[in-house]
Amino acid sequence: MKYSFIETKQDSHFPIQNLPYGIFQPMNKEPRAGTAIGDYVLDLSVMDEAGLLNGTGAENKNIFNDSSLNNFMALGRPIWTAVRTRLQHLLDVNTPDLRDNESLRAKAFHRLADVNMLLPAKIGDYTDFYASKEHATNVGTIFRGKDHALMPNWTYIPVGYHGRASSIVPSGTKIRRPFGQRKSKSTDQPVFSPSVQLDFELEIGWFIGPGNDLGKPIPIDQAEDHVFGLVLVNDWSARDIQAWEYQPLGPFLAKNFATSISPWVVPLEALEPFREAGPIQDPAPFSYLQQTKNGAFNIELDVYLRPENQKEETRITQTNFNYMYWSIAQQVAHHTITGCNMRPGDMHASGTISGPKRIERGSMLELTWRGTEPIQLNSGEKRIWIEDGDELIIRGSCRGDGYQIGFGEVSGTILPSFSEIEILQKGKNKA
Amino acid sequence: MKYSFIETKQDSHFPIQNLPYGIFQPMNKEPRAGTAIGDYVLDLSVMDEAGLLNGTGAENKNIFNDSSLNNFMALGRPIWTAVRTRLQHLLDVNTPDLRDNESLRAKAFHRLADVNMLLPAKIGDYTDFYASKEHATNVGTIFRGKDHALMPNWTYIPVGYHGRASSIVPSGTKIRRPFGQRKSKSTDQPVFSPSVQLDFELEIGWFIGPGNDLGKPIPIDQAEDHVFGLVLVNDWSARDIQAWEYQPLGPFLAKNFATSISPWVVPLEALEPFREAGPIQDPAPFSYLQQTKNGAFNIELDVYLRPENQKEETRITQTNFNYMYWSIAQQVAHHTITGCNMRPGDMHASGTISGPKRIERGSMLELTWRGTEPIQLNSGEKRIWIEDGDELIIRGSCRGDGYQIGFGEVSGTILPSFSEIEILQKGKNKA
Repeated sequence: MKYSFIETKQDSHFPIQNLPYGIFQPMNKEPRAGTAIGDYVLDLSVMDEAGLLNGTGAENKNIFNDSSLNNFMALGRPIWTAVRTRLQHLLDVNTPDLRDNESLRAKAFHRLADVNMLLPAKIGDYTDFYASKEHATNVGTIFRGKDHALMPNWTYIPVGYHGRASSIVPSGTKIRRPFGQRKSKSTDQPVFSPSVQLDFELEIGWFIGPGNDLGKPIPIDQAEDHVFGLVLVNDWSARDIQAWEYQPLGPFLAKNFATSISPWVVPLEALEPFREAGPIQDPAPFSYLQQTKNGAFNIELDVYLRPENQKEETRITQTNFNYMYWSIAQQVAHHTITGCNMRPGDMHASGTISGPKRIERGSMLELTWRGTEPIQLNSGEKRIWIEDGDELIIRGSCRGDGYQIGFGEVSGTILPSFSEIEILQKGKNKA
Repeated sequence: MKYSFIETKQDSHFPIQNLPYGIFQPMNKEPRAGTAIGDYVLDLSVMDEAGLLNGTGAENKNIFNDSSLNNFMALGRPIWTAVRTRLQHLLDVNTPDLRDNESLRAKAFHRLADVNMLLPAKIGDYTDFYASKEHATNVGTIFRGKDHALMPNWTYIPVGYHGRASSIVPSGTKIRRPFGQRKSKSTDQPVFSPSVQLDFELEIGWFIGPGNDLGKPIPIDQAEDHVFGLVLVNDWSARDIQAWEYQPLGPFLAKNFATSISPWVVPLEALEPFREAGPIQDPAPFSYLQQTKNGAFNIELDVYLRPENQKEETRITQTNFNYMYWSIAQQVAHHTITGCNMRPGDMHASGTISGPKRIERGSMLELTWRGTEPIQLNSGEKRIWIEDGDELIIRGSCRGDGYQIGFGEVSGTILPSFSEIEILQKGKNKA
């Protein structure tokens, strides 16, 4: 097994087998690209400047001395692989170049605890899928009853919709409870108020690499060449706003107030040892959705809730990305089959990841069955929806033999809504 | 009435009262910002370089010497007004500065026919609304029957959904007929083929200016301060793909293969003389949607279809933007009420604009009542959907006393789909 001269404990999310990419900002310095190793981040702009990336095809392009990974994402798989191979070599316990160069090490490494993590990319378009059969069945049962749970199209197409890119925020950003219209079944008219059914959605997202020209679909066997890497996603949702607004054009305001993502993008290459067969697909997909290799990944996913002013987190979900019915490649191929163009830095997300057991459900909506079965927290409190001050944390990792490929975490804390007067009169804008 | 020393005929779309902004590319030169006047475009980067924009607040910022208007859009209403006032002064028949400076004129003016028009902005997010009551009623009747035509939420909320920004293209871009899944009512299973129900949607779009911070809604009385200007939009739609995919998360692939826009952004200021009261809203909107001034604009809109290899266009739609139930300001206020952030260059569109008469319907779906009532073209041909080689052209203008504020046009011609083999195996990508 490979080891780095940077010590990484066995439970570290960031051993030399991982090397996720992110954009970080050291104190009083400009943002730049880095890779995480143990408790440290390696500054890739320093590596490039020192000539240590020469020959990879990524050198001397100012792509690491940048506030987003978009230009790196645009370079494509052969160069990503060359950079990754080089970094694994440079960080290897037996490679002296960086290990024994104290002044370079001093410049190149920062403690993770000392830097600010930003969004990894300028996200042009964000698409959210609906690829978990268990989730779609749960939601369908809750909203339309058991007999109409899964729409007839669901087993034929990876259902998805366009999301809001501007409100994607990095882990740690506080989330303001949104206002909106909601209507209960017992009344004729809606009311305007803060949402009272605030929810999370446990998802996995992926960033698009080179992309395709408008009018030219990405064939499924090339689809993974366009997947730079994966992150954890919490697609915050206001279920009361959603229920009232979503017909006939789908979720809109219920989702666009915030989507939180983990800052470290785990390369697809790091996940190869955890590739496996997904669920059997019946009916057989159309030819443009037939993938020749296994398309699922075994990623263990946990969700924790921590009430305000408490230290203890309660694990409320424990599931796995390998439950997903539609694979990443199938979702990319489907998205582009009309000729829709992908651009470097676009983000897709899987939709809520749920498994067959109750603890495996990836949203409050499903966990509490729309508020009818409260969750018990370790503190003794109960929850049916997320309350003000609650922190929601998603963690994920692949468990290898003696190491793990971790995603870090995505967390967010709910701030109370403004008052209605503040919303209507005091909204200060840049205009 | 104001006149320019650049002669503009009475039927010109671009008199001195208009002065729309766009990004143009002269032969063998870099893209830059301009304003249209008569048959000419005035290069704003040349105006700025010559010092003629000094004192407006937009000078010496390299915002006109740029390939998008985003940085100009970000400056906000007071600076937009100052620039517009200055340009009207500089172009006035009585102002000698530009009129009598032959060498500057030679540098600053290009014939519209000689330049390439590009997208006016880098569009971060694109949102499509559904704000015409006639359109929503027509579509609802066609898909769900007369008794369930309008959803209960429709008169309470400006329904909208997130669209695809990457596939927005400027007028003139050819559109490839998309592949997709579709299912007829008479069969159990869908088929995979090129769309056979290709449609247009006549819409008006607007570009967002300064925008708001995440978590801080834009109050409705400030909403128009964030509206830079308007364009014509054709939101191409594949109705067969849409019918099969849209439940429960809304239109996705049916819309993301292309959206065409006119290249000249007509400033909101130019439309002030054509502001008027919109339809009476019953029930009264919630407070956050109550607009104190008139929110509708009288913009005459026409759609023409020209079959391949024919010269003659047939006008198939003749309607008006003032039919819209929800105003621009209401749509902006609603979009941000959750705290969703707008960024300079974001685009909203109104949704299909239809009026009560048959000729006023803004899509083939409505004009032919889902293919049951063919349209007769001047050539004697009939149409129920758009065919390969057809060119679709939308034109719009406000008719003033002795002048008009025109939008120019947005056109697009349909290319035949690739073969299935080309789609699945020969898709060449940048990867």
